[in-house]
Amino acid sequence: MRAGNEAPLGVFDSGLGGLTVVRALRAVLPHEDIVYLGDTARVPYGTRGAATVVKYAGACARQLVSHKVKTIVIACNTVSAVAPEQLRIDLDLPVLGVIEPGARAAVAATKTGRVGILATPGTIFSQAYTRAVTTLSTRTEVFGQAAPLLVPLAEEGWVEGEVPRLAVRRYLEPLARAGVDAIVLGCTHYPLFFSIIEEEAHAMMGPEVRVIDSATTVAAETRSFLASRSLLAPPRERAGSMRLFATDVPRSFSEMARRFLGDENIPEAEQIDL
Amino acid sequence: MRAGNEAPLGVFDSGLGGLTVVRALRAVLPHEDIVYLGDTARVPYGTRGAATVVKYAGACARQLVSHKVKTIVIACNTVSAVAPEQLRIDLDLPVLGVIEPGARAAVAATKTGRVGILATPGTIFSQAYTRAVTTLSTRTEVFGQAAPLLVPLAEEGWVEGEVPRLAVRRYLEPLARAGVDAIVLGCTHYPLFFSIIEEEAHAMMGPEVRVIDSATTVAAETRSFLASRSLLAPPRERAGSMRLFATDVPRSFSEMARRFLGDENIPEAEQIDL
Repeated sequence: MRAGNEAPLGVFDSGLGGLTVVRALRAVLPHEDIVYLGDTARVPYGTRGAATVVKYAGACARQLVSHKVKTIVIACNTVSAVAPEQLRIDLDLPVLGVIEPGARAAVAATKTGRVGILATPGTIFSQAYTRAVTTLSTRTEVFGQAAPLLVPLAEEGWVEGEVPRLAVRRYLEPLARAGVDAIVLGCTHYPLFFSIIEEEAHAMMGPEVRVIDSATTVAAETRSFLASRSLLAPPRERAGSMRLFATDVPRSFSEMARRFLGDENIPEAEQIDL
Repeated sequence: MRAGNEAPLGVFDSGLGGLTVVRALRAVLPHEDIVYLGDTARVPYGTRGAATVVKYAGACARQLVSHKVKTIVIACNTVSAVAPEQLRIDLDLPVLGVIEPGARAAVAATKTGRVGILATPGTIFSQAYTRAVTTLSTRTEVFGQAAPLLVPLAEEGWVEGEVPRLAVRRYLEPLARAGVDAIVLGCTHYPLFFSIIEEEAHAMMGPEVRVIDSATTVAAETRSFLASRSLLAPPRERAGSMRLFATDVPRSFSEMARRFLGDENIPEAEQIDL
């Protein structure tokens, strides 16, 4: 069953980091209604086996389907690495993940054929971006760099000043040595450090290096996809609405949501069981 | 079945952080043979439910029992919070956890009756130290402070310089405001920052403040316990041996093991399934 163009977009993530994708979607699709689900009770997915991740992702996606969404955007790198095909088959609904758009943008941007991925240890270890890039271009080399400090820094709101800058510099060094000229931010938390990463990358590797934010790229692809299927929300006066579901509402919920969404007006989170 | 005093000590943890406890044990019990098991394939336990943690802990403990250990030291805060009683009953073997010794040392050290706990968000949320302290002394107030950056910093070996120092300072600030005069390091990774934490605590709260490393306190209690049961290894010429088991051998294994153990001579890790 495909809902019409007035139906909302569904977005889910293992936690709240995926709100950076919502932020990017709202920037390019201001009239879309969005239903977001964060599986905060079971975050992080990165340490679970693939079968478990597929199961959890199915539960999240079915919850979104119950809100009659027209398309699902997976805002989680771990889920995007293992579950999109299965979800497309099970739900008979368009499902977009974050990895392919990021990989595509990197392949388009690189001139040296050397692409860097900045992500969590789990995503780097899964080689998901490496597979996605080499599927698109066998001549492109991928250099993964785990950046474990950036998630706790983002969750604590420590996104400015000397500490995140020193951390970013440390993680960029191996990529600079590898000679990459495109760097994909392969974790939903990292857009919070976009300016620092871009500044440091330019300082270390020259002004040619491109930093690719996978939230922005998946938002752009979602827009193109909806347009191609005539699924864009009709132009209307009001801005798109937003509903926010979470399987657990942590103590720092609204503060974190505000930070990731870049918006002071956070809707009340509705807690649900999956 | 209790093994004799020549039997080894068994130590387990969800990962490699528990090697800081082994380091502390070797300092006060140089003649003990030690068998260490790190459940590295399932680390971290902190995000699992209590029933799962008890199940995993049982599997780890039974593995140690198969090596005929005389006593088990749980070097994991998450397991120490939920599993010791059950393990003592199931195994009919002495089982020591890290939480009670740390809580006891804090209650003994504080003069203001205000104790700070520095730990992972999971441990703080579990209130395990609060329960342990208030069981010992209802007049002692406990202030928990999550310090999420310290684990990735320790695992990356980033244990010196400006970044860990700024992180430590940030985490100590709320404890300084609360007026604590004893601070328990409630995570196996934190002893790597002991000097920085102590320096910063003295600078912020005065020279009276005591920093309590739960690895050192559990090692001291293990020594007293073995002595009281006549279970100390007999004096002998050779130093105690060490065997190291892990359920997964991560790429950075030997480097991390060396760091946590504070010893260049790491035995080869033996990989086992549980």
